[in-house]
Amino acid sequence: MFKDFKLIAGRPVYIQVKDYMKHLIIKGALQGNQKLPSTRELSLLLQVSRNSVISAYESLEDDGFTYAVQGQGSYVAPAAAGSISVPTWTLDWKTRLNGHARMAEDLDIMKRGIRAEKGTISFTSIAPDENLFDLDHVKRAFMERMSVEGNVLLNYGYAKGYKPLIDYLRQYMEHKGVDMHGKDILITNGFTEGFDIVLSALSKKGGAVICENPTHHTAIKNMKLHGFELKGISLERDGIHLGELKQALEEGVYDCAYFVPSYHNPTGIVMSPEKRQSLMKLMTQYEIPVIEDGFNEELRYSGAHVAPLIATAGSGNSVVYLGSFSKVLFPGLRVGWILADRELISVLESTKRARSIHTSTLDQSILYQYLLGGHLEKYLKRAKSEYKRKYELTMECCKELIPYATVSGDGGLHLFVTFEEGFNTRELLAACHERGVIFTAGDIFFTDGTGQNTLRLGFSRVNDEDIRKGIVIIGNVARQLMG
Amino acid sequence: MFKDFKLIAGRPVYIQVKDYMKHLIIKGALQGNQKLPSTRELSLLLQVSRNSVISAYESLEDDGFTYAVQGQGSYVAPAAAGSISVPTWTLDWKTRLNGHARMAEDLDIMKRGIRAEKGTISFTSIAPDENLFDLDHVKRAFMERMSVEGNVLLNYGYAKGYKPLIDYLRQYMEHKGVDMHGKDILITNGFTEGFDIVLSALSKKGGAVICENPTHHTAIKNMKLHGFELKGISLERDGIHLGELKQALEEGVYDCAYFVPSYHNPTGIVMSPEKRQSLMKLMTQYEIPVIEDGFNEELRYSGAHVAPLIATAGSGNSVVYLGSFSKVLFPGLRVGWILADRELISVLESTKRARSIHTSTLDQSILYQYLLGGHLEKYLKRAKSEYKRKYELTMECCKELIPYATVSGDGGLHLFVTFEEGFNTRELLAACHERGVIFTAGDIFFTDGTGQNTLRLGFSRVNDEDIRKGIVIIGNVARQLMG
Repeated sequence: MFKDFKLIAGRPVYIQVKDYMKHLIIKGALQGNQKLPSTRELSLLLQVSRNSVISAYESLEDDGFTYAVQGQGSYVAPAAAGSISVPTWTLDWKTRLNGHARMAEDLDIMKRGIRAEKGTISFTSIAPDENLFDLDHVKRAFMERMSVEGNVLLNYGYAKGYKPLIDYLRQYMEHKGVDMHGKDILITNGFTEGFDIVLSALSKKGGAVICENPTHHTAIKNMKLHGFELKGISLERDGIHLGELKQALEEGVYDCAYFVPSYHNPTGIVMSPEKRQSLMKLMTQYEIPVIEDGFNEELRYSGAHVAPLIATAGSGNSVVYLGSFSKVLFPGLRVGWILADRELISVLESTKRARSIHTSTLDQSILYQYLLGGHLEKYLKRAKSEYKRKYELTMECCKELIPYATVSGDGGLHLFVTFEEGFNTRELLAACHERGVIFTAGDIFFTDGTGQNTLRLGFSRVNDEDIRKGIVIIGNVARQLMG
Repeated sequence: MFKDFKLIAGRPVYIQVKDYMKHLIIKGALQGNQKLPSTRELSLLLQVSRNSVISAYESLEDDGFTYAVQGQGSYVAPAAAGSISVPTWTLDWKTRLNGHARMAEDLDIMKRGIRAEKGTISFTSIAPDENLFDLDHVKRAFMERMSVEGNVLLNYGYAKGYKPLIDYLRQYMEHKGVDMHGKDILITNGFTEGFDIVLSALSKKGGAVICENPTHHTAIKNMKLHGFELKGISLERDGIHLGELKQALEEGVYDCAYFVPSYHNPTGIVMSPEKRQSLMKLMTQYEIPVIEDGFNEELRYSGAHVAPLIATAGSGNSVVYLGSFSKVLFPGLRVGWILADRELISVLESTKRARSIHTSTLDQSILYQYLLGGHLEKYLKRAKSEYKRKYELTMECCKELIPYATVSGDGGLHLFVTFEEGFNTRELLAACHERGVIFTAGDIFFTDGTGQNTLRLGFSRVNDEDIRKGIVIIGNVARQLMG
């Protein structure tokens, strides 16, 4: 005994001694009512100061693992020593889980996706480049909020969200042209929780959602998990195909629509202002509420500001806008928001409370302080020029090197490549993977099992040299496969 | 125009000018293709430096709200100017929401509870006393993690959780006597998300959950929201009534059990080690998986360490343990964990990913650094002595001043008072509220509509003087009502 004690850095010695002794007691190496070594003995055995052992013994007693006998020393508390007399039962959890849980696992592409080994050039991520993060201002934002109201931030907050952030976002959305009258904001753990909460609240008349095809694969997953059928509408260069949409609206019944009007994932298309108006007219005519994914709206590299659908809807209350800075600022801060009709938000607030009480107040307050200080603007200026360069380089390389049919992407952090019908990007991916390059095969974004001839290239976390190197390989392999 | 411009502190002037001009453009006060005032004019009109205006104009152009004409100045971009020609549609969201959403709102007691006005003595909270928070070490923990891996912390993390924290918690649970073989941990946004995720995954054979009566009202709400019937088993002084439990198990079919063995909410009872073993034997015999709420386990003021049910289960995999430091450390950091069978955790990880991608990495890393540094032990030592004093004071005041039938509470941050049958604590609450004292009427904790003669007193955030003052009033009012 006492031979396997090893000290680690960054943790008080007395706690490591305490942990070690706990371990011996729990494992039964020290029995109930057994006397512990004297503090002097143990300090010699473990090669630690006697004070550390004394503190450790005190702490063990505080935790009820030992008891002291006046003048005799410390003894193991009987109850603490491990003595389990319960028959062990190993159950097969699979038999206790429902279809929803199994479906969540089946649709979890993170568990199937190709892992990027060291040295692989990976175009799979559309997360921001962490090297652009401006840590100093995040640190300052944290310190500032902590000094102002640290105690409050660390205690329970409100399900609706951190008030200063909500007020900031109200103005932020007003500046996107949104009529905020009768509307309210609920803070969520990013876009995904917001979308999940909204879907969980919608009644199913038709049991179907109308959306773009292709569209955001996480959204597809969650709509399916909530039991909705998907009706995907194909895209034109300037956004959703209105004719196809109109026909679908005439033929089917839909509980809501889900659209990504700006820097659409995966195609990167920005829906034109004219199309946004026509789209909203149709939604109003057929009385279909719209869930708008504000995804990447800030990553505009050129062209005029385009108002979101919820602004186009004016004083109407039929659009539920889901906002997030994750793709622009810090995904690690899990903060997004739902902007919608006040009555609806009040109901969703109760759902949010039932699911997770509230979103991390620390994350919210840091984001608030960072935004208030005007650092988003400064950061975006830097990030956009960097991403714009990569965007143009990637586009140029695609045009030069990949035998594609079409390539799309008006901004954002990715491009979408479509090959001739019959070409299979899964085969392309397998072959490229062998040559150290991976990307996202596009089929996962399609609602109707098509898209085998498409792929998404995320360039935000690939350096210029690798962008070219990677696309050269993709292009060569593609030509080989075309024979 | 330009008269209503007001500067606020803490935000760069140029951004405030930009926001203001955006506002005018969005509202249509500045029309498409209209020329903006020269930078000199505007700096005079708004009383800000010309450089601020120049930066604001550049930034407006970057955002596509304006365009510059060489040598002539800035003009409003037509697309940016608000011009909505879509018929507005106001829909009645109530008609679009399902029963689940309505139920979440109906069961949301936060929307019904009595608000504590200034000066009210409130015994409703069982959150920690924020004045005990040790902010310095939280700040240091943040700074330390940020300097080590800030970029990583702010980018996407893993659904399963922050690896160093998971490893720390594995050891932490081992020291509670848990056999970790074949078990794994999933980090969640506190207890509530963990519980919600587990419930969402369970299949419904009997469609019922067996639990203590009374029990944690948030748990009751979530079990109902997931469509489970509740079978509540009454409590004895040392925990659940085994005879009643055995009978229920013989008569009914249950998909799982939910227990709060330590510092039970609301009764504060700690289940005895003997009872824990008998309980687990029964659960094994009837093959009922157990969801264990590790609530307040750390708030032991006296007596020996008591191992959680998941430790009592030994190498068995039938217990799902939900842990959280919220009631002990910082509720604002939304971090909890599910400890369970490895296969089960793998499935739940997919559910977690589908719901919220992952828990705030910042919260997780701060908690990890704080725990590693041994600050939980130091903090608990301080907090426990403080809470213990309040606990004893509250108990003493109850015994002296309240004409109760029984009072329970072996530790934790609250006591539970039961009056004679027929006494109504809602009436007591209404009368006390008029005299500036509030508490939680106990009926919300009962699964069978009883408990009208009970109440919960949370003392963690009430100072000593108010504890006595408040209980004097409760006692007097109670006696009056008894006539």
